[in-house]
Amino acid sequence: MVTFLDEKEKATPVFNWPFSKIANSLEASVIRETLKISSKPGIINFAGGLPASELLPIDQIQECCDSVLTDHGAQALQYSISQGVPVLRELIAHRISRQGLPVTADNILITTGSQQGLDLIGRVFIEPGDYVITELPTYLGALQAFNFYQARYAPIPMDNDGMIIEQLEEKIKEFRPKMIYVVPNFQNPSGITLSYQRRKALMNLVFRHQIAMIDDNPYGELRYSGTPLPSLRGLGGDAVIQLGTFSKLISPGLRVGWICAPVSAIKIIEKAKQAVDLHSSTFTQFIAAEFLKRGYLDPHIEQIRTAYAVKRDTMIAAMKEYFPPSIRWPYPDGGLFLWVQLPDNVSASMVFQQAVHQGVAFIHGRPFHPDGSGDNTMRLNFASSSPENIVEGIKRLARVLSQYC
Amino acid sequence: MVTFLDEKEKATPVFNWPFSKIANSLEASVIRETLKISSKPGIINFAGGLPASELLPIDQIQECCDSVLTDHGAQALQYSISQGVPVLRELIAHRISRQGLPVTADNILITTGSQQGLDLIGRVFIEPGDYVITELPTYLGALQAFNFYQARYAPIPMDNDGMIIEQLEEKIKEFRPKMIYVVPNFQNPSGITLSYQRRKALMNLVFRHQIAMIDDNPYGELRYSGTPLPSLRGLGGDAVIQLGTFSKLISPGLRVGWICAPVSAIKIIEKAKQAVDLHSSTFTQFIAAEFLKRGYLDPHIEQIRTAYAVKRDTMIAAMKEYFPPSIRWPYPDGGLFLWVQLPDNVSASMVFQQAVHQGVAFIHGRPFHPDGSGDNTMRLNFASSSPENIVEGIKRLARVLSQYC
Repeated sequence: MVTFLDEKEKATPVFNWPFSKIANSLEASVIRETLKISSKPGIINFAGGLPASELLPIDQIQECCDSVLTDHGAQALQYSISQGVPVLRELIAHRISRQGLPVTADNILITTGSQQGLDLIGRVFIEPGDYVITELPTYLGALQAFNFYQARYAPIPMDNDGMIIEQLEEKIKEFRPKMIYVVPNFQNPSGITLSYQRRKALMNLVFRHQIAMIDDNPYGELRYSGTPLPSLRGLGGDAVIQLGTFSKLISPGLRVGWICAPVSAIKIIEKAKQAVDLHSSTFTQFIAAEFLKRGYLDPHIEQIRTAYAVKRDTMIAAMKEYFPPSIRWPYPDGGLFLWVQLPDNVSASMVFQQAVHQGVAFIHGRPFHPDGSGDNTMRLNFASSSPENIVEGIKRLARVLSQYC
Repeated sequence: MVTFLDEKEKATPVFNWPFSKIANSLEASVIRETLKISSKPGIINFAGGLPASELLPIDQIQECCDSVLTDHGAQALQYSISQGVPVLRELIAHRISRQGLPVTADNILITTGSQQGLDLIGRVFIEPGDYVITELPTYLGALQAFNFYQARYAPIPMDNDGMIIEQLEEKIKEFRPKMIYVVPNFQNPSGITLSYQRRKALMNLVFRHQIAMIDDNPYGELRYSGTPLPSLRGLGGDAVIQLGTFSKLISPGLRVGWICAPVSAIKIIEKAKQAVDLHSSTFTQFIAAEFLKRGYLDPHIEQIRTAYAVKRDTMIAAMKEYFPPSIRWPYPDGGLFLWVQLPDNVSASMVFQQAVHQGVAFIHGRPFHPDGSGDNTMRLNFASSSPENIVEGIKRLARVLSQYC
């Protein structure tokens, strides 16, 4: 079938699309380019945010698929409601309730991974020019989500106990922020955990100033050392919206995350969700529900924890042995990442070019800084490589770093 | 675990979330309420937009799941790229190329159903106050998607050949629209198909005035009578962005749709997609790809077509037999819907109340009219009920209508 236009019209040059709203973010391009280079053969890849492929529970998911299609096939393949499949929401609510303040299925909305939770939060709350308080550094995906809604940022520096709360009240008064966004457990990128005293102080400020509080918690169950702390949601109840996901606990490819929030908030977010994609995959929601119903999740998390603890310890031991002594990193009690601070005068983007030549890749830390700082920082994923590759990758990286530090 | 706040802070009333941007659309609430009522036991439901549950290819999807998890388990459960799984994009590009202008995997971006395609289009193109030309009536989900970006609408009335193109150029000159949005095949809600002459005239205007053209095509392959027509994408090439989906062809619960567009457009939309949810479910993309690879799709579509043709003919025959003669409807050559026009002075919302008492439900047509007209219209889904229920439902509806018409 060919085109049927008049000869005159055929000659018209191809239409230029009126793109105007999607910023060509330099940071996002850098990250994309980095990830492309990092996945080349021969490169030991500490760059991505991936969980370990060898730990994905393929056989158990196969069992869940069979059982879902046999018992609920028509339902699992049909349209569903925007808030999410009820049985999954009940099971998630039950899990969250075990940790503290009880919630019900009405408090849960299923999202396509946590990233969609961040976009929906931005969509519902942020108006152009609104200030958002973040940690410094903060999760890049949150910045990408909030940038579209034209957020401005008031980032608060961290120490080994997380966001420095002493600076928070000042910033609240100065910027009258619309919300506070925190990744309190084993933060991406820094690996830092907000201490109990800081959590309490943070929530007291949230109540006093009545600011929306977003508790982004993808890694909370991946603790390998130290004592579990009460969640911000557990401390603040209905003052806190918490984001969760099975991406690091079961499989990222299912794209099943959730928002846990007061019912009044869920009702508004549900309207937004309906307009953006009607609902997330019914089928993968049923699979996740079956995984939980069968009791597969807790033993699987235990298995991941054991494996990731070994990988973390392996990477830290190698860094201690091979890195120049001027290099520092906070100790992560969980999660996927080690956060490496080079001397102030060393740019991690220069290190990156040479590291790739040596066959190892990481993510430059600067894109995680909304204020443009952090040129001397880098994020290493210890979860997705084998212990052997971790040691070899750190050796390669150390060879490059020893030229600069 | 209880809250750890000071007594004074505990007494603070629960935080009020600063919702501001999600309009509490009356139309959306009406639809939600309607769908809730319609799914009650004992109600014959012509309201939803669902495909027939009894035709969902459960066994074939089970085979695909097994094969995907056995052969590509780790890949199918891991993170993927924002544009979508390459093998699926290749297979979709191949299918589209069969219909006319060839495209490649680079022209395809996978979305979470067509609804996400509409949201991404709005996100990339529409700035507050921009005009969008639509058919009158038009697809409600498109209005919900575009409303968030503060679109205004210039709707063009339809006759049995689709949008009345004679009125289009006038409106283009008056409103300088950012884009034209059309559902050219078996439109939702009207069932009307844009004629070949009108397609040609429409594309000539698009070229002359250089307006972005959105061809929303969820039903194109569900034709039961008449001659297939060249697609708008086939006529206009790179001047057209086409949306497609497997929701009505395989399963809505997989949530696999796509955008077919020039590479320059795909690159921008990919950035938007990355910020909203990173990517759609890797696993359901692999399942859809396997379904296509195994050659299951064409025979399955043939089976759906045969069944839906019977249902359509059954509903039309019953309407001819039982409806008062003052009631009219355009004849749909495909799709899922019959569009019923009551006499001008009859409100379909009044009919709805009584119809529910009689045990039959439909969707009021007014929400599909961006200008607030259409109070005397209703949409009937003929695809999701059995032929027996179709006849019984039309009888019940006829009893109510005979009081008004």
